[in-house]
Amino acid sequence: MAPIQKTLNFFGLESDVIFKTFKDLLTGEKYIGFDIVQGNLESLVKVRITGPDDVDRIALFEMLEEKIRQSLGQYLFSSNEQGMEDIVGSLLFKRKITISVAESCTGGLIGNMLTDVPGSSRYFLGGVIAYGNQAKHDLLGVSSRTLEAFGAVSDPVVKEMAEGVRDIFKSGIGLAITGIAGPDGGSREKPVGTVHIGLSIGDDTYCGKYRFKGNRERVKQGSAMMALDWVRRYLNEDPFLPSL
Amino acid sequence: MAPIQKTLNFFGLESDVIFKTFKDLLTGEKYIGFDIVQGNLESLVKVRITGPDDVDRIALFEMLEEKIRQSLGQYLFSSNEQGMEDIVGSLLFKRKITISVAESCTGGLIGNMLTDVPGSSRYFLGGVIAYGNQAKHDLLGVSSRTLEAFGAVSDPVVKEMAEGVRDIFKSGIGLAITGIAGPDGGSREKPVGTVHIGLSIGDDTYCGKYRFKGNRERVKQGSAMMALDWVRRYLNEDPFLPSL
Repeated sequence: MAPIQKTLNFFGLESDVIFKTFKDLLTGEKYIGFDIVQGNLESLVKVRITGPDDVDRIALFEMLEEKIRQSLGQYLFSSNEQGMEDIVGSLLFKRKITISVAESCTGGLIGNMLTDVPGSSRYFLGGVIAYGNQAKHDLLGVSSRTLEAFGAVSDPVVKEMAEGVRDIFKSGIGLAITGIAGPDGGSREKPVGTVHIGLSIGDDTYCGKYRFKGNRERVKQGSAMMALDWVRRYLNEDPFLPSL
Repeated sequence: MAPIQKTLNFFGLESDVIFKTFKDLLTGEKYIGFDIVQGNLESLVKVRITGPDDVDRIALFEMLEEKIRQSLGQYLFSSNEQGMEDIVGSLLFKRKITISVAESCTGGLIGNMLTDVPGSSRYFLGGVIAYGNQAKHDLLGVSSRTLEAFGAVSDPVVKEMAEGVRDIFKSGIGLAITGIAGPDGGSREKPVGTVHIGLSIGDDTYCGKYRFKGNRERVKQGSAMMALDWVRRYLNEDPFLPSL
C-alpha cells in the first residue's frame, strides 16, 4: 500500500526548532517518519507517514498533528499544499475584506503572490510599486518631511505608505513594505536586509522592523512572506512575530 | 576533463523548432550533444558540449553558436545564465532609459522580475498594479469612455495605461499589460489567456494582442516575458513577435 504523505507549512521558526519538536513528539514511534524540506525561508516542513495506510496510522497521525498545533500552532499556516497567499486570500474572502499594497523593495512581489490565487480580484484591488522617494511622495502621499527626517526605510514612512495606498484604493487593508534588498544601499545603521512593514486597518496602523538574511531574492521573499503573515495573524487574532 | 557546458536562452519559439535547428546543425558532429531543458515557457534551450575541453571543441562550439545566431538570432536573448530581466535591465542601463509599469493581470510580476536585478533602481522607477477598472481610471487616467467602449482587455485601454503610467512616473518607457489570466473571466470573444501589451516611448505607443496557453501562472509568466521581450526588441531594433 502506498504510504500516506502530508505537508505541514510553517513560517517564522528556524527549521531546527521544528525538527526538534517533531523529533520529541515522535520518540518511540516507528511507523511515522518525517523530513524537513528546505524551503526558501527555511519554513517548510514535510511530515511523511511511512507506515501502511491503515486506520490506526491515520488516527495516530491526526493525534500528532493536534500535538503539533498545540506547540507550534501559530507558526503552522497550512496543513496542505496551500501557500501563504492562498491562506491569506481565503481569510480575506471569508471576512469580505479588501486589500491593496504599497511596495518598495519587494517591487511587486506581494501583488504577484496575491494574484497567483484564482479569484483574487474579489479582494485584491491593486497596488503601487513606489521604488523611489519621488513615487512614495507623489503617488502615496508620504510627506517630504517624513522622508527627510526618517529616511525611506523607517516606521514613519511605511506607516504613511500603508495609509496612503489604503486611501487611494479605498481598501479595508493597506499593506506596505520598504527596505533594503541589497546588495548595495546598506549602511551601518540600516544594513542590507532591513525591512519595515506597515499594516493599516480600521483606525490603526501597525509598523515593525525586521532584518532578513541572504541575497536580494531572499530578502524580497522573506519580506513579502512576513507582510502576508501579518495579515494572516491579524485576521486570526494572533500576535505578529516580534520585530527588532 | 570536465565537459564544457553553456546555456542558450530563447524566447518566442516553440521548442521543437529549436530542437530541429540544433539537430540539423549538429548532423555528423559526434563530440557535441545538446538537451532541451523545459522552461516555463518552453523557451529555454541548453546546449551541452560532451567532448573534451580542448581548443578544437571550443572553436567548433563558437562556430555553432555563430550559426545559431544567424538562424535564430532575434529569439536568442541570452547566451549565459542571465534571464530576460537581466538583459532588459542591462539595455536600459546602457541607454540611460527609465521604465515604469502598469500591470493588470500580471499583478506585479513584471515589477518583481525587474527588481530581482541588483541595481535596478537606476532605471526602474515603479509601477501601478491596476487590477480593477476603478484603479485603471483613477490611478492611470484611463478614460471611462474607453473602458466602456472596448472593455478592460483591449488595445485602446492598454495604450492609455502605458501612456498614463509613463506620465505619472515621468519615465522614458511606460510598459502596460491587461488580460485574462483565468481560470474565470473568459468569454468567446476574449478567452482566458488573452493579453494586450502596450509600450509607450518617445512619440509612440505600440499595442498588441496575444493568446497564452496554460494555467493562471503560465499566462502571467508568458505575458510578463513577452512584455519585457518587447522592450528588448525595441531597444535592439528587432521587430516585435507577431500579435494576433
